[in-house]
Amino acid sequence: MPSLEAVLEQVRERVTPRQADIERLESAVEKTMERTEAAIEDLPVEAEALQVGSTARETWLASDRDIDIFVRFPRELSRAQLEEYGLDIGYTVLPDGREEYAEHPYVTGTVDGFDVDLVPCYAVANAADIESPVDRTPFHAEYVTEHLTPELATEVRVFKQFTKAIGVYGSNLRTRGFSGYLLELLVLEYGSTRAVLEAASDWHPQVVLDPNDHGEVTFDDPLVVIDPTDPQRNVAAVLSGENLARLQHHARDVLQHPTVDAFMIDTPDTIDADTLESKITARGTSPVALVFETPDLVDDDLHPQLQKSLDGIGALLERHDFDTIRTAYFTDNRTVLFYELEVPNRPAVERHRGPPVHVRSHAEEFFDTYVDADVFGPFIEHDRYVVERDREFRAATALLESETLFDARLAPAIEAALETGFELLAGQEITALTTEFDEDLARYFDPGP
Amino acid sequence: MPSLEAVLEQVRERVTPRQADIERLESAVEKTMERTEAAIEDLPVEAEALQVGSTARETWLASDRDIDIFVRFPRELSRAQLEEYGLDIGYTVLPDGREEYAEHPYVTGTVDGFDVDLVPCYAVANAADIESPVDRTPFHAEYVTEHLTPELATEVRVFKQFTKAIGVYGSNLRTRGFSGYLLELLVLEYGSTRAVLEAASDWHPQVVLDPNDHGEVTFDDPLVVIDPTDPQRNVAAVLSGENLARLQHHARDVLQHPTVDAFMIDTPDTIDADTLESKITARGTSPVALVFETPDLVDDDLHPQLQKSLDGIGALLERHDFDTIRTAYFTDNRTVLFYELEVPNRPAVERHRGPPVHVRSHAEEFFDTYVDADVFGPFIEHDRYVVERDREFRAATALLESETLFDARLAPAIEAALETGFELLAGQEITALTTEFDEDLARYFDPGP
Repeated sequence: MPSLEAVLEQVRERVTPRQADIERLESAVEKTMERTEAAIEDLPVEAEALQVGSTARETWLASDRDIDIFVRFPRELSRAQLEEYGLDIGYTVLPDGREEYAEHPYVTGTVDGFDVDLVPCYAVANAADIESPVDRTPFHAEYVTEHLTPELATEVRVFKQFTKAIGVYGSNLRTRGFSGYLLELLVLEYGSTRAVLEAASDWHPQVVLDPNDHGEVTFDDPLVVIDPTDPQRNVAAVLSGENLARLQHHARDVLQHPTVDAFMIDTPDTIDADTLESKITARGTSPVALVFETPDLVDDDLHPQLQKSLDGIGALLERHDFDTIRTAYFTDNRTVLFYELEVPNRPAVERHRGPPVHVRSHAEEFFDTYVDADVFGPFIEHDRYVVERDREFRAATALLESETLFDARLAPAIEAALETGFELLAGQEITALTTEFDEDLARYFDPGP
Repeated sequence: MPSLEAVLEQVRERVTPRQADIERLESAVEKTMERTEAAIEDLPVEAEALQVGSTARETWLASDRDIDIFVRFPRELSRAQLEEYGLDIGYTVLPDGREEYAEHPYVTGTVDGFDVDLVPCYAVANAADIESPVDRTPFHAEYVTEHLTPELATEVRVFKQFTKAIGVYGSNLRTRGFSGYLLELLVLEYGSTRAVLEAASDWHPQVVLDPNDHGEVTFDDPLVVIDPTDPQRNVAAVLSGENLARLQHHARDVLQHPTVDAFMIDTPDTIDADTLESKITARGTSPVALVFETPDLVDDDLHPQLQKSLDGIGALLERHDFDTIRTAYFTDNRTVLFYELEVPNRPAVERHRGPPVHVRSHAEEFFDTYVDADVFGPFIEHDRYVVERDREFRAATALLESETLFDARLAPAIEAALETGFELLAGQEITALTTEFDEDLARYFDPGP
């Protein structure tokens, strides 16, 4: 087994961009900055262009293709003016660009093969005075540039590569992982990738780090890293407990069994219909899937809506006694809400417990309701009336095909999509999904840490 | 609809023994008392014969055939001497009698067609000083004789008939209902059957009555009637909450819809195999039954053991995810532990949740245990490791046929009986039980209050 140091050294070499990559990037950045500054000249207001993000400091990976340019406008400018000027500059710099929307609209396009985001923001005095989260970014860039030595920048690259390999890199709401800035702060805190991994192996969440020792608020999140540029902000707010646990697991693993492979991004496995069929048979479970056209939403809106709706229908199934062993959603052009049920059918009757007999008015009402109804009972159990009445849905598929589906807590876009129509697959019918979701299904049926 | 008063008047007539019945009883009592007193003469100690029970006061029903004679011995006598003299007298008075055992041995036999119990006890100064519960009985007899007018005795007869009709008469551990003494105290407390029924309709348990206003202890029981002869005793201690609720239900019912039928004991319904088969089909449930030779125990020992074992195996089934919609035991020469399952089979896999990943030593141990095992996972869910591993028992019948059955909390005699051997019936196989348990099964599948 190679030593951890030998492994890390190999990884350092791999993740450090070659001179040619650096020159290509620098040339593209220079060209973009020049164009941006020229575009600013044409505006009736003062503004400042600023390169931010990993390619602005030495923490980008050879595979990264992102250039982020922020244009800081005076605080006096109206929001509407800022947006107008921002788009003006964006389309001037990136004539083939297109508008995107995060906190406010910005233009994204390409320059010499690099993906360029051109984002307008306000120049505020400090990060606590921001108007919108993008205003904070320049402060992050400044803080990291000021503190990160070239050696530490390399450590950030190595650590970033690791988080990508284990699938926890990215602070979008699909991944709910580690942002680049969070990685940088962790490396600054602990001093090296190795030190971060060793610390993470022994973390007992809640873990609170406060590099500037100025935190003013408490948080519930499992990892709290107080933003050195904003005492009220947790940089790790979006990180899920699951991804934190995942980092802990893989940190321990790579420390005990150091391999370069641990830093490499695997090609995803796939599964074919026959293999899936035998997996379902082996598990003896009853999968059901709701399949529908994916609503046209940005990822950060779509994924929380999918998670909420997945959980909502899961809770509906449980309320009707259809317990799930595991659930998941898969999304591409179509979306799948996937429920692996313990059993597909329930008996014809269900218990319905009434009030205690001594609560006279309620008890009499319950008894009168059921005494001549087509039920078993009413009878008395302990101190209560009980009836066994016909179950509304004996089959989970009947429940999901009924209007009762919409009693579930659903996010609005998902509710609308389901109302438009969906396909319901049950049991071995889900093997049809392997044409679109072979990677998702492979991961579902061969889950790892 | 007849008035309640008209109904009660009819019932009074029915339950009051005819003159010929009274004379037959009195003649048998006289004969038994004479024989007992003669037998006492032959003993080297002083003792006193005392008739107790409902036939000693005017609260017996025409259908009652029980004469209870207690023989009170001096407190100085040893327990062994008391038992010996008691059996001596018993076999002298009842030459064809046989020994039974309650608190101590006594003889039971017949005189002129009446069932006679001849029970030895100690003559103690007051009911609080008793050696054993039987010593208390003469105090009850004395108290009731002193307080009960002939009119109230008739009310006791009517109320007793009502509790028999609704199945809650008897303080044995099979029934867990109302003792004769309890009925007498309730009628004394409220003044008539009608008044008891009206009061019971509105009871909010816990209900506490203390006729002598001398209670010294608090009880958890739903109905507490402090014994007028013993401040530390609840006469209703054995009454179950279920039977109390049952009285409340039927009291309300008869007050709202007075009929003589409400006081009549129904011939039990029966069910045949075909009807049972269609009931099971209609319910869509999965019954299983363990059938074994009934252990040779007195009822007051057998029934608590059966209830405990029924519940123990029910809990075992639930632990293995076999939920029951209802359970029951039936007992005759053979005994049936009956479980009506929601579903007979579970999937091949079950979730097994490990420790949180951050609890390092436990987490590593869990991961190492399963990483190379034939399971799905380990994967991470929220902050924990989870595996999906093979379920030990996919079928409830496999569980009940395995040695794991004996992991259930079982009462000793039932455990021994099951170890000797049992028959396991599942699904429609239970229709075979209609030859022995047609009344029990009829009641189970057509339950009422």
